[in-house]
Amino acid sequence: MTAYVYVSLKKTVLDPQGKTIQSALNKMGYKGLESVRQGKYFEITLDGGLTREQAQAEVERIAREVLTNPVIEEFRFSLAD
Amino acid sequence: MTAYVYVSLKKTVLDPQGKTIQSALNKMGYKGLESVRQGKYFEITLDGGLTREQAQAEVERIAREVLTNPVIEEFRFSLAD
Repeated sequence: MTAYVYVSLKKTVLDPQGKTIQSALNKMGYKGLESVRQGKYFEITLDGGLTREQAQAEVERIAREVLTNPVIEEFRFSLAD
Repeated sequence: MTAYVYVSLKKTVLDPQGKTIQSALNKMGYKGLESVRQGKYFEITLDGGLTREQAQAEVERIAREVLTNPVIEEFRFSLAD
């Protein structure tokens, strides 16, 4: 089973990296961009011994306790077989 | 319209950052992990002037030409209203 975890800055937190990418893209001539925000993305392969519920709980725990800084970041995740 | 671009290392490329996260998680007692790979994630808000086809083409061009290093990385993206 594979879990995909997406960690991004909260909407209220300034993202200077995203702003830099956006202004670079504008200067390079790409049009129609309103905003760019960058985040992190983790692909976690779980071994077959876990049920879907266990996997879900384990991945959420990992995302919440380790991969995300709860002060400035939020996460979402999905599971795929 | 919002585009979500996911950039990850090609499967054949070693991901030392992911390996480090995996071994840290194992030492911290999280079980059942077979592998961890880290990538980047971009959330691009496009202004309303673009049709879905134009947005798709523009985002693909940005992802291919700027956000991804084609030698070691691959990308996928999705569009949402």
